[in-house]
Amino acid sequence: MQLARVIGDVVATVKDQHLSGIKLMVLQPLTSDGSATGRTLVAVDAVGAGVGETVFFVRGKEASFPFHPTEVPADAGIVGIVDHWDVEPERPAKGPEPRTGNREPKAMRQEPKA
Amino acid sequence: MQLARVIGDVVATVKDQHLSGIKLMVLQPLTSDGSATGRTLVAVDAVGAGVGETVFFVRGKEASFPFHPTEVPADAGIVGIVDHWDVEPERPAKGPEPRTGNREPKAMRQEPKA
Amino acid sequence: MQLARVIGDVVATVKDQHLSGIKLMVLQPLTSDGSATGRTLVAVDAVGAGVGETVFFVRGKEASFPFHPTEVPADAGIVGIVDHWDVEPERPAKGPEPRTGNREPKAMRQEPKA
Amino acid sequence: MQLARVIGDVVATVKDQHLSGIKLMVLQPLTSDGSATGRTLVAVDAVGAGVGETVFFVRGKEASFPFHPTEVPADAGIVGIVDHWDVEPERPAKGPEPRTGNREPKAMRQEPKA
Amino acid sequence: MQLARVIGDVVATVKDQHLSGIKLMVLQPLTSDGSATGRTLVAVDAVGAGVGETVFFVRGKEASFPFHPTEVPADAGIVGIVDHWDVEPERPAKGPEPRTGNREPKAMRQEPKA
Repeated sequence: MQLARVIGDVVATVKDQHLSGIKLMVLQPLTSDGSATGRTLVAVDAVGAGVGETVFFVRGKEASFPFHPTEVPADAGIVGIVDHWDVEPERPAKGPEPRTGNREPKAMRQEPKA
Repeated sequence: MQLARVIGDVVATVKDQHLSGIKLMVLQPLTSDGSATGRTLVAVDAVGAGVGETVFFVRGKEASFPFHPTEVPADAGIVGIVDHWDVEPERPAKGPEPRTGNREPKAMRQEPKA
Repeated sequence: MQLARVIGDVVATVKDQHLSGIKLMVLQPLTSDGSATGRTLVAVDAVGAGVGETVFFVRGKEASFPFHPTEVPADAGIVGIVDHWDVEPERPAKGPEPRTGNREPKAMRQEPKA
Repeated sequence: MQLARVIGDVVATVKDQHLSGIKLMVLQPLTSDGSATGRTLVAVDAVGAGVGETVFFVRGKEASFPFHPTEVPADAGIVGIVDHWDVEPERPAKGPEPRTGNREPKAMRQEPKA
Repeated sequence: MQLARVIGDVVATVKDQHLSGIKLMVLQPLTSDGSATGRTLVAVDAVGAGVGETVFFVRGKEASFPFHPTEVPADAGIVGIVDHWDVEPERPAKGPEPRTGNREPKAMRQEPKA
């Protein structure tokens, strides 16, 4: 999924019948520091999000899950409204590093931080 | 989904039989401010869109939903003709910001604008 | 789908059994003005395309539809050989423009050209 | 799948009901030399990963497999915690090279290294 | 599918149970002239490929087909080991060109080379 801000909506009279009554919102994807990234897109809305809200959305067939059993022809859907999110400040990786070169037996488990 | 302008069509005599009688349109994806973005693509048309029209299309298996039960081998399909769309002018985010660093208990809900 | 030129083929003796007897072609995707764009890829061929031909191909699970009921593990497949395609010369958009800022009732439908 | 570092989490009260009780983590994809690459994303967690850990995640509908039969509307999911990984140092390719130009019968199999 | 070189492997003790006993390889995608392109990724291996070999892999749910009926949560899988591949030298397109502007009846089929 990706974080996004709802920045608008789309009105379409002529459309696939399974989209009838479903809100079509324009989303601006966000990075984890809250800035805009990448292309805007149109998503169906399963949670009642409004313009200006921060949400997370899902891509692919999964976007139509909340509307089952209706087979909604959608490839992006808002599935949650974000209360807040937390990210760790940039820091050196504590997880495992790749080992290169001599391919000895793999024994040493590098303990990633819990 | 993405906004796009229909800019042409494709004629193919030799093709998968399940594509017979289905219109193949050339689309130019659009950003939310109406300018062209990214690669053109070929999409099946489920709503009778013509060259010059602004539409929204869906990517993936969902593109074949409007043709069920025929299993159309398509990965992009026009599912609506756009009447108009509205986007908010660029402005500072009103939604939640990420919190970094000290990971205290999460209590404060930042109210995104409705 | 995308337009592409068939530029080669791949020979693989050791492969998933469901790929046996299926031609593997190397494709160069094309823009709508016929020039090469993006990465080459390997696609299964359902229509008997040869090297040098212009085709359109489908991405995703749909690539295996023409081989049903065999579950071919493919994510790209040639589904048509292009006779020709037509694109409109670049011109100002005639479709609807986004409306920004003041969100009044949506009434005016801008007629896109047929 | 891709390698990633878990860099945070997301809290959402209003969300699709099938996401209830599922942890939503913020991931930073990694290259095979352990450096950050590409956009952060939000993934469901099926293996109990914590912030700071190195994991690999899956994109697409497959992200919901670990939660079957619940139809979780997710397009990215952590499916493993990485103990370590090994990569060969950069070196000239030992596998087959493409052959260009004169298309003679294909006989010579170039033996890629085992 | 895409061509790739196997450049390493990943070890993960904690992982989705359906990945147990399945090899996880690190792949470097290749262009059709054999040079590295794009991000490395982690793929399941259905054909017994080793480090250093040139393979082609499939993205998406199709990656789990070779492991049916097990529902392997994978989005990339090696499905063949490449013996060799052939590509035509760069040359002017012989396939059809797009026709722009005046949209007359489509009659003339441009014969692409066989």
